[in-house]
Amino acid sequence: SEQFYPTEHPHRRYNPLTSEWILLSPHRAKRPWQGQVEALDETAKLSYDEHCFLCAGNERINGEVNPHYQGTFVFQNDFAALKPNGPSMSSDDPLFTMQTEQGESRVICFSPDHSKSLPELELNEIVQVINAWQEQSAELGRVYPWVQIFENKGAVMGCSNPHPHGQVWAQSRLPTLAVKKQANFSEYYKKFNRALLNDYMSRELLNEERVVASNKDWVVVVPYWAAWPFETLLLPRFPIQRLTELTETRRQSLADIIQQITIRYDNLFQSSFPYSMGWHGAPFDGCSHPEWTLHAHFFPPLLRSASIRKFMVGYELMAEVQRDITPEQAAQRLRELPSVHYKQRAI
Amino acid sequence: SEQFYPTEHPHRRYNPLTSEWILLSPHRAKRPWQGQVEALDETAKLSYDEHCFLCAGNERINGEVNPHYQGTFVFQNDFAALKPNGPSMSSDDPLFTMQTEQGESRVICFSPDHSKSLPELELNEIVQVINAWQEQSAELGRVYPWVQIFENKGAVMGCSNPHPHGQVWAQSRLPTLAVKKQANFSEYYKKFNRALLNDYMSRELLNEERVVASNKDWVVVVPYWAAWPFETLLLPRFPIQRLTELTETRRQSLADIIQQITIRYDNLFQSSFPYSMGWHGAPFDGCSHPEWTLHAHFFPPLLRSASIRKFMVGYELMAEVQRDITPEQAAQRLRELPSVHYKQRAI
Ligand SMILES: O=P(O)(O)O[C@H]1O[C@H](CO)[C@@H](O)[C@H](O)[C@H]1O
Ligand SMILES: O=P(O)(O)O[C@H]1O[C@H](CO)[C@@H](O)[C@H](O)[C@H]1O
Repeated sequence: SEQFYPTEHPHRRYNPLTSEWILLSPHRAKRPWQGQVEALDETAKLSYDEHCFLCAGNERINGEVNPHYQGTFVFQNDFAALKPNGPSMSSDDPLFTMQTEQGESRVICFSPDHSKSLPELELNEIVQVINAWQEQSAELGRVYPWVQIFENKGAVMGCSNPHPHGQVWAQSRLPTLAVKKQANFSEYYKKFNRALLNDYMSRELLNEERVVASNKDWVVVVPYWAAWPFETLLLPRFPIQRLTELTETRRQSLADIIQQITIRYDNLFQSSFPYSMGWHGAPFDGCSHPEWTLHAHFFPPLLRSASIRKFMVGYELMAEVQRDITPEQAAQRLRELPSVHYKQRAI
Repeated sequence: SEQFYPTEHPHRRYNPLTSEWILLSPHRAKRPWQGQVEALDETAKLSYDEHCFLCAGNERINGEVNPHYQGTFVFQNDFAALKPNGPSMSSDDPLFTMQTEQGESRVICFSPDHSKSLPELELNEIVQVINAWQEQSAELGRVYPWVQIFENKGAVMGCSNPHPHGQVWAQSRLPTLAVKKQANFSEYYKKFNRALLNDYMSRELLNEERVVASNKDWVVVVPYWAAWPFETLLLPRFPIQRLTELTETRRQSLADIIQQITIRYDNLFQSSFPYSMGWHGAPFDGCSHPEWTLHAHFFPPLLRSASIRKFMVGYELMAEVQRDITPEQAAQRLRELPSVHYKQRAI
């Protein structure tokens, strides 16, 4: 019978973190595109923008004035999706199930420089962002079991303000995705007495074909089950469950690997590469959670160029996620890119 | 203690079809928007476009020539995501699970008129689209257990060709979402001996506050657990499991309700309203499936205007879906819109 080539034949791959399948149609990448083309914002941004709600010294929408901050600046989201107080109420009617929810939403400005996203910051500036992630996790983790650190980068990823920033939302119950991961990590641990993502990391390091970048502490892979064309997974090479457990040297090496992956992303289409990224670690519930491994996801939408993206629409919303290029092809393209930012090389 | 108001206090609602929670932050709708604004394509489209791959008589990318069709026209997708043949292969390694997949992808042109999407077609033209959905379901359902009919409408929903069309993808295994629904419908049926969505339909009809439109056979609601701002669910008021079981009169009344909801959608922001829509019915596996109810989802991205959309990004991709306006508010806005298309009224 005919031989199977992953770069030619439609197949499905299984995401063991979410229990979802991905449909891979590698032959489909060549279809014509008469659809939406994203606007490219190539106007050079200034270091300071007087109309920006996040620049140092500027007034925000609610009248508060940002301090003249150096490094990072964290404040409560003026339009927080979650609030620490509020009435309590729930219904367990099987068709109309609801519950009130408490939490907090904060904004983390990465630096006072309006023009510089993560890949353009200095290593020590990225360390400061990591410090802020760690401090926020520690502080909110004392009150809430789930602290979600994330960044929406680029207008195409719904970022509502162009000043480089991330967010942290904490909530009093585990959100949908955290519950799924908890279940899958627990099940794997019960079966093999090892952490799923630690096993996965070891096998990807041995295999190499999906590895994009690595240093002594961290490795970035395009996961076997990637949904987005250039999706990556950032994994530690040492045992760690939460951001709060990072030591000084590991924050340094983490800054290095974040620089490596985000510079490659910008270099891929020589433009500021949009994505949503976020951290997942063990819940702050007082348990030890040996089944968990701290990790970060990067979900970037671009597919063919700086202006042609992958849409997660019809089939994706109704049936299951479909992708065109294989994770192995994506990893190779990212791996072979220069590790110096294209704007630096242009100088 | 403080009273709970769903239009004021953050809460979560549970989707019993997918087992996922939605975070509702009703107070958040007023936040400023310095993010992406969608391009509005308000250039009047012509009934025929010589560069369109889907217009009657035109040549497609692969050299085939479309017939001078009347009504609907169905053809195999020239860049099909699924193919009927191919080698067989699978791996059940828990970290690298995969399986080859067989199937078909077809395109359904709704009418020869390049300029008219569903809400602008005549009732009898919509009936022809329903006929095509039914024929495709019957034909592909003889070979594949899952036949996914869907439409991506509008460039913002990744539609790669502006000629009004939908798609049908069939595959030899149940896709991820179908498996989830099958599990939830079965569980509910085991417990109550009734179909979940039939019970849900009855209670929404009684309650009325989430009902957008109805006729003697069908009802459209903004579901209690809606994720997208103006998401709707189209439900039958009579027992039916699959599109293939629709009678002549029910196809007529279905055309009417589709016209009602899509006209309201266009009227909401007086523009061609983008969405992904799709049908879910019982698998074609020879079983009777009393736990299933045929239904359609409309997932439209717009939030505040024809150019400001909801983004399913950071928190949505990392934790759980968040929405601003309540489903009840969305239903009221849609319900109160005129039932005549704004372009008709302008004449
Ligand atoms: O098939 P099309 O219209 O070329 O492509 C569109 O619909 C597909 C099915 O939902 C998606 O996978 C693509 O991302 C989207 O652009
Ligand atoms: O918080 P922002 O940047 O205003 O808003 C953005 O991120 C949120 C969290 O992922 C999303 O819910 C919004 O849809 C998106 O536009």
